[in-house]
Amino acid sequence: MTLILGIDPGSRITGYGIVRDNGRRCEYIASGCIRTGTGELSERLNAVFSGIHEIISSYHPDLMSIEQVFMARNADSALKLGQARGAAIVAATQAGLAVSEYSATQIKSAIVGSGRAAKEQVQMMVMHLLQLTQKPQIDASDALAAALCHAHHRQTLIAHDLSSAKSRGGRLRLTVR
Amino acid sequence: MTLILGIDPGSRITGYGIVRDNGRRCEYIASGCIRTGTGELSERLNAVFSGIHEIISSYHPDLMSIEQVFMARNADSALKLGQARGAAIVAATQAGLAVSEYSATQIKSAIVGSGRAAKEQVQMMVMHLLQLTQKPQIDASDALAAALCHAHHRQTLIAHDLSSAKSRGGRLRLTVR
Repeated sequence: MTLILGIDPGSRITGYGIVRDNGRRCEYIASGCIRTGTGELSERLNAVFSGIHEIISSYHPDLMSIEQVFMARNADSALKLGQARGAAIVAATQAGLAVSEYSATQIKSAIVGSGRAAKEQVQMMVMHLLQLTQKPQIDASDALAAALCHAHHRQTLIAHDLSSAKSRGGRLRLTVR
Repeated sequence: MTLILGIDPGSRITGYGIVRDNGRRCEYIASGCIRTGTGELSERLNAVFSGIHEIISSYHPDLMSIEQVFMARNADSALKLGQARGAAIVAATQAGLAVSEYSATQIKSAIVGSGRAAKEQVQMMVMHLLQLTQKPQIDASDALAAALCHAHHRQTLIAHDLSSAKSRGGRLRLTVR
């Protein structure tokens, strides 16, 4: 059992989502948004750090998953996004969590099966995979998608380990972390 | 007496500088660089956070001064700079420090007297103002310049308070914070 915290940082809203991965499927635990308000930059970044810190203290996730940013829209929004990402990532590392980064294509492929899926398709599949009856807010949904991508990646690695152990005819030495 | 921590964050090197402001002039206390290494993003950002945290624990500065970024070169470098800034700023706010931001023009004007001064002129004036015999590394020098700018701003405010109190013929109610 691994508890995965997915986050989708932003300068105004940082989405978060937590799923429990039992190695074969994932269960929804929680999701939501940290709203940073309209205060000074340092207060807004502190809200991201403190929000993530609080979530980690409440749910004790094993690791954090986050979407990698390859191409930001423009320099100004990239700076703002970077600041929120920096605050969120250090909140995780300071709590001792490993951080995994996945590209948008990896996340879309893991959730929908196509790296070119639309945002709405990802949101629908997140709802389906986690058996949600209500549509989560888009930032929370993106955070859950990052968490599910890590679970998918992990399950694929486990399946690969199993099959290669079988093909070697050796004993299973599977360690689920 | 106010101890000011100036920082100049970057994705590879974060400069820092500490000056003691006695209300009329500034004394050099320390400066240096936090090198973030070549590890994973989360490790590098954690190095910035932990480095700033360590400096604050050692010197107990009263506040932090940082250069405001208006125009980053491009989206990719803006994202990297933003991440380092985010990690550095939350390290200060988590330690209870207020963060003041100054534009490059404000810093140059405070140090050299012209908002269009070259980087080398700023460095020379930082050395002169703090009576340094050795040239500090450029990131450390930029951090000291941010700290000196805050001191200049503070001294100007104090001078303004004094003169307006005199002109009102009232009692001085000067509080040096």
